[in-house]
Order: sequence, then C-alpha cells, then structure tokens
Amino acid sequence: MPNKEIRFASRPAGMPTLDNFNIVDADTPQLNDGEVLVRTLYISVDPYLRGRMREGRSYVPPFQVGEVIMSGVVGEVVESRAPEFAPGDIVTGMLRWRLYNAAKAPELRKVDPRVASITTALGVLGMPGLTAYFGLLDIGQPKEGETVVVSGAAGAVGMTVCQIAKIKGCRAVGIAGSDEKNKYLTTELGVDAAVNYKSPEMSQALKQACPQGVDVYFDNVGSEVSDAVMPLLNHGARVVICGQISLYNLDKPDIGPRPQPFLLVNSALMKGFIIIDYSARFAEGVTNLAQWLVAGKLKYAETVVEGFENTPKAFIGLFSGENLGKQLVKVA
Amino acid sequence: MPNKEIRFASRPAGMPTLDNFNIVDADTPQLNDGEVLVRTLYISVDPYLRGRMREGRSYVPPFQVGEVIMSGVVGEVVESRAPEFAPGDIVTGMLRWRLYNAAKAPELRKVDPRVASITTALGVLGMPGLTAYFGLLDIGQPKEGETVVVSGAAGAVGMTVCQIAKIKGCRAVGIAGSDEKNKYLTTELGVDAAVNYKSPEMSQALKQACPQGVDVYFDNVGSEVSDAVMPLLNHGARVVICGQISLYNLDKPDIGPRPQPFLLVNSALMKGFIIIDYSARFAEGVTNLAQWLVAGKLKYAETVVEGFENTPKAFIGLFSGENLGKQLVKVA
Repeated sequence: MPNKEIRFASRPAGMPTLDNFNIVDADTPQLNDGEVLVRTLYISVDPYLRGRMREGRSYVPPFQVGEVIMSGVVGEVVESRAPEFAPGDIVTGMLRWRLYNAAKAPELRKVDPRVASITTALGVLGMPGLTAYFGLLDIGQPKEGETVVVSGAAGAVGMTVCQIAKIKGCRAVGIAGSDEKNKYLTTELGVDAAVNYKSPEMSQALKQACPQGVDVYFDNVGSEVSDAVMPLLNHGARVVICGQISLYNLDKPDIGPRPQPFLLVNSALMKGFIIIDYSARFAEGVTNLAQWLVAGKLKYAETVVEGFENTPKAFIGLFSGENLGKQLVKVA
Repeated sequence: MPNKEIRFASRPAGMPTLDNFNIVDADTPQLNDGEVLVRTLYISVDPYLRGRMREGRSYVPPFQVGEVIMSGVVGEVVESRAPEFAPGDIVTGMLRWRLYNAAKAPELRKVDPRVASITTALGVLGMPGLTAYFGLLDIGQPKEGETVVVSGAAGAVGMTVCQIAKIKGCRAVGIAGSDEKNKYLTTELGVDAAVNYKSPEMSQALKQACPQGVDVYFDNVGSEVSDAVMPLLNHGARVVICGQISLYNLDKPDIGPRPQPFLLVNSALMKGFIIIDYSARFAEGVTNLAQWLVAGKLKYAETVVEGFENTPKAFIGLFSGENLGKQLVKVA
C-alpha cells in the first residue's frame, strides 16, 4: 500500500500558505504488537492547529519543522495486532496527516456507525461538540431566559453552542461572517438573531439583537467582535474564551480596548479553557450530545473537501471562514 | 452646632480638582424618630468614588451635581431618638461629607473601641479589608505555595491582600509606586518581593520576582501594570479585578494588548467584583480579619489628613498615590 504524508515545512508568517506544507511519499508502517494499521477516511482541520505552528507556548507543544502534522482523524482498521480492534472497525484518534497510520490501541476509540454518521466523531460528537458542551455549560452556566451571544457561530463549535443555549431555554444570538451563514443559523438551527460581523453597523445590530443585554458570551473570535459585546454585558455575566481565531495569524500583540473595566463594573467573569481540562468528563458530554442528536434537538453542518492533498488548503480556508460547520477532508 | 457640608460642584474632566467640590455652611439636621445625630470623626476617601462622579453606569449610581458627597464615616452619636444608640456611641456607616449627619438607625453599625482603633472600621476591618478578604479568598482561591501578585499593594486593600496571601502560605509579590512603599511592604509586612511600577525595568523585575510564574493576580490598578503580569500567568491562574485606579481619570477607552489570548492559553480566569456582592458574608469576613489583627498576623497603615475642609484634597491625592495604606480625613 503506497503511503503519503503531509509535513510541516516552515512556520507561517501571518496567514498560512501552501508553502508551509510538504506532501511526500512515505513508507507504509510496520506494526508492532499492540498496534493497528488505520486507513484514513476523514481528517479534521481545526483553527487551534495554527497555534501549534507558532514557536513557544500555546494550548499544546508546537509542531517541529519537518514533523508530520497531527489532528483528529476517522479511519478504518485494515490490519490489527491489538486484540481490541479488528479489520473493518471504524476508529478515531489524534493521528498524523497520512494515508495510513500505525497507532497504539489506547490512542484510538471505536466509532459506532449505527449511532450517527462517522464524521460526527470529528464534529458534534467529537472535540468540537465537547468544547461547546463544557465551555457553555461549565463556564457559561446559562440559565433559562438569559441571552447567550456566540461569536464564530457558524463554525462547528459555535453552532453547537447556539443550539445547547436554545435547549437550555436561552435567547441565542449568533455572530458570523456572512448573511448566508446567518440565515442558516436562524432558519435551520432556531437561533433567535444573527449578526454579520462584517457589517459596518455590527455594534448597533448586536445591541438590537440583545434587548436584555448579554449574560453569556461564548467567544471563538476575539478582537473587534468581542469589543462590540463588552458594553452589553449584564451584571454577573460570564465570558467564555474558547478561541480567538481573528488573532491566530497576527504576529504582533492584539491591541484594543482592554476588557477589564467592563468586567469590573459588572462583577463579570472571563475564563479561558481547553477541552483537555475536561477529559475526565468526556463520557458525560458525548452521552448528552448523542441524546440530543438522536432526539433531533441538535443539528450539525459539515463542509467537506475531497482529497488528501487538499488538507492544507482546507485548513487555510478556516481563517477566511469558508466553512459552514465542521470543516473536514474526505480522504478515502 | 454650626454644620458644614461638601457638595459635588461639577463633574471632573480627567483628574478631579478642588473646583469640583464646594464647601458650604449647612443647617444642623433635626432628628425624626428612629434617627440619631452623628458628629463626624473620620471620613474615608476611596478611589471608587471617582466612578460615582462620572455620568452613567459604574459600581453604584452616579452623584448628581449639587449633591453632598457620601462615603464611609466613623462618628460619635451626640443625640439619639433611636433606642439602639445612645450619646457617646461610636458608629460607622455610609454618610454624607458633613460635620453632623442625621442617620436612620439601620444605616449605622456600632464600633467597639476596645477591639482596635476606631479608624479600622474604615480600613482593615471595614470595606477595604472585606474587599481584600473576599476578592482574594473567594475569587483568587490562593493555595499554599502559589505566587500571588498584588497591584496597588501599598493601598488599604492591597496591603491586606498581601498579608492574607502570606497567612495562606503563598509567595506574595507587591507592585507599588515608590521604593519607600516597597520597603514598607517587604520589611514591615513580610511581602516576599516588591516591584516599583514606575521603574523602566518593571517587567523584568516582576519576572524575576515570580520565578514560578503567577497563580493569582489581585489587580487594583489595571493598564500597563497588568500588561506586565499577563505573560507570567500560570495554567489555571486567577485574575481578580478589584479596581482599575489608573483608568478612573481617563475620559477615553483604555487601549492596550487585550488579555484574552493569555487567558485562553492558560485556561485562566479573570473576574470583577464589588464588595456588595458579598454582603451576606460580611460577618464572616470581619470576624476573621479581627482575629488576624488581634493575633498580630495582620498589620495596617493609615495616612491621615487633618481637617474637614481638606477632604477633597485627600481624595484627589489618592490618584497620585500619596497614601500609604488607608487614606483618612480626621475631622474632629
């Protein structure tokens, strides 16, 4: 079986380009005891990977130049030297951007194709879904009747947050980058109002969309989008810092109005998190998300690019908002 | 008894000036049933009062032009039509800047002069002490061996925070505006290290003072002082936004590096509060603070200006850091 892999060729300066990646032929891995050979079916590209392309501290250790990129993958077991897995099993895990990976059994989790599309293991039932679940419920603590504002609302995390807010009886207000995305949010997902952050009247539109102020702000974007939310915070508001996608390609500090005065006068909370903080509670999260999914209370969208060699392009497209919902690459 | 009062004459633009206040003769109040006549002994001037001089939302409703300023006062009952109080009682409450105030009994609390100096009711056993206590312990949640950084460390709140951090077994690092204040913090209060924010090497000095990073940042100051702390935050750090004294005289937004990226990569928390949030637990706070005070574990400093007519000057002096510890005005 001929193998290919995508290496991290150079650190991006600003927006990543195709030159930062290198697609090369690779050996098909030989298995050791306890390992399985996984054929990649879908690759997840995620904004947080940009942080790993930077030297220095971020969520997780940085990629080394020359290293094969790693992210969430769904694949099929084609050969097994581990008793837990048999050929034909569908699995997910953090694997390398390769057509075939050798993986140790504990690095993989089985995916049941009868519950939902196997791609949901990379989206609403995977890391993005869990990120939405724990960030909103554990930090945001939305109460019935409160207003929840979500930036990056048309992404995989954001649209899940919007819907969980509705499940909890909140007013959900989404902020996204096109009228088409916003129409999807309001007509398909039941979001109460949606604001286009590219509109020059964004601040005014957001204020109108939040007549009772903002109790929870789930932030995937940062910068000027967040600046528009801060003056609307209510007393005791909670700001969940999940991502700051508008900053990931900045190579200088993000300058703007500091939010501390807004937190001070409102006794408001702002908290960052990474999903690994909640790893002990993943089973709880997946169980609830799957129940809502099966009950039809939780929908998801996917944007699928075909072809392994298009993985870098799909990743780069995240930063211009080309995706509605989860951005995936279909490999095989 | 001739009476005097200090009225709010005009809203300050930037730094308050004496022109913003008006000292005038006033009638001595006539008592109704349930009221007592209180002769002002000490007036507390506090940075938060600047917020009330601004139109629009802050901690508490704004002062109206022409209104007599109100803040914490310690006084002596000279006449009583309320059964709870007798002439000679020492009391404290939020009263007007007057030589004599008529106050309703529920607005006052007795001060026991045998426990400590009656001035402590405005400082370490009053609002500043409680602010330090609940802000640090409830939001900051310091654990033994952690590093606690305090800005405005030589003020009434800050020096109490530093000492509670030491009581809890933490490394306490103070940031203040003069070498003299910092010497007081390290030699008199047992603070482990102190940094002068006016030094051009402030960031470097702070980094050296925090070799294990920063677990709790108790912020009274904001702006560039806080900018220096953000890169030192540890995973799971807590930032307590108690005050932003560097901003209170700004009439434009506070522009600088937004802190969200630091909160994100460290799963860190930032929370504002006002002491009223904790009013149900004041008895707990005062009891613990008094025990530490009596046991010699908690010290305090006071800067006392003499003369009722100097109250505006003492208030204005807060913003140039003229006070060590609690700034008081001795009226009688």
